[in-house]
Amino acid sequence: MDESKGLALALEEAQIGYREGGIPIGAALVAADGRVLGRGRNMRVQNDNPILHGETSCLQNAGRLPSSAYQGSTMFTTLSPCDMCTGACILYGISRVVIGENKTFLGGEAYLKQRGVEVVVLDSSECRELMEKFIVEKPDVWNEDIGVEERVYSREGIKASSK
Amino acid sequence: MDESKGLALALEEAQIGYREGGIPIGAALVAADGRVLGRGRNMRVQNDNPILHGETSCLQNAGRLPSSAYQGSTMFTTLSPCDMCTGACILYGISRVVIGENKTFLGGEAYLKQRGVEVVVLDSSECRELMEKFIVEKPDVWNEDIGVEERVYSREGIKASSK
Repeated sequence: MDESKGLALALEEAQIGYREGGIPIGAALVAADGRVLGRGRNMRVQNDNPILHGETSCLQNAGRLPSSAYQGSTMFTTLSPCDMCTGACILYGISRVVIGENKTFLGGEAYLKQRGVEVVVLDSSECRELMEKFIVEKPDVWNEDIGVEERVYSREGIKASSK
Repeated sequence: MDESKGLALALEEAQIGYREGGIPIGAALVAADGRVLGRGRNMRVQNDNPILHGETSCLQNAGRLPSSAYQGSTMFTTLSPCDMCTGACILYGISRVVIGENKTFLGGEAYLKQRGVEVVVLDSSECRELMEKFIVEKPDVWNEDIGVEERVYSREGIKASSK
């Protein structure tokens, strides 16, 4: 699937999440043959659930699959994946991770590459602006989601963290 | 909390999972002050859910917590954590992972250490025997859970894999 088309699915999920009052991160898992296996969004707020990030939510919605279903697949995600979601992609042998942006948060991209996963960063301003808006509005919820106590958000911009 | 006492909680979860027809892996998250924050077990079969491993299920059951709640905490798990669960422990800054056994499966122990998490392996024969029994009974379900196509199970024993 075309990168911008796949990312659009993920961004749509993120936007739904924002309208629900949640953390606006979305994902879509697309098989080697272009079929959409699943879509999902961060559900920490909506479901009071700390393990439903965009990518894990997407994997959950895709359901139980044989390992062959993940071969050659691409995980599209609006934001650089955290350590949990990085590990989930590695566990299931997802071949490629296409990332909307990594300016508001820098996750496990280096480790994905080290473990043989192709990583593409699209540097989408739509993804970044949605996250920036959310982080300024609800910094405490965001800190909780990435497991940090507090971060400094200045007018100069939101600093990426590799925590 | 005493290591064998914490592992007993995790093993109890694994045994419940086995009786339910599920994959017998359990976990318990214990705070620095000894409070049990959550317990959980692999729910792939019971809930048709590919992201509910022992540790992630435990984190889900512990609910939304501030990052301070995880500081100094220990994740007790009956089996060496897969890449997803390894990443989940790193994300939330869990301080120590106490593992029942790593003979039937070797997960992200080296990476946990590299990221500053203390790892203790107890080499529990109870945990190992329960997994060995399950893997022989339902190899396909086990392969699906660790994202592999097939593995060879010989009479000589189940080989650990670092996939």
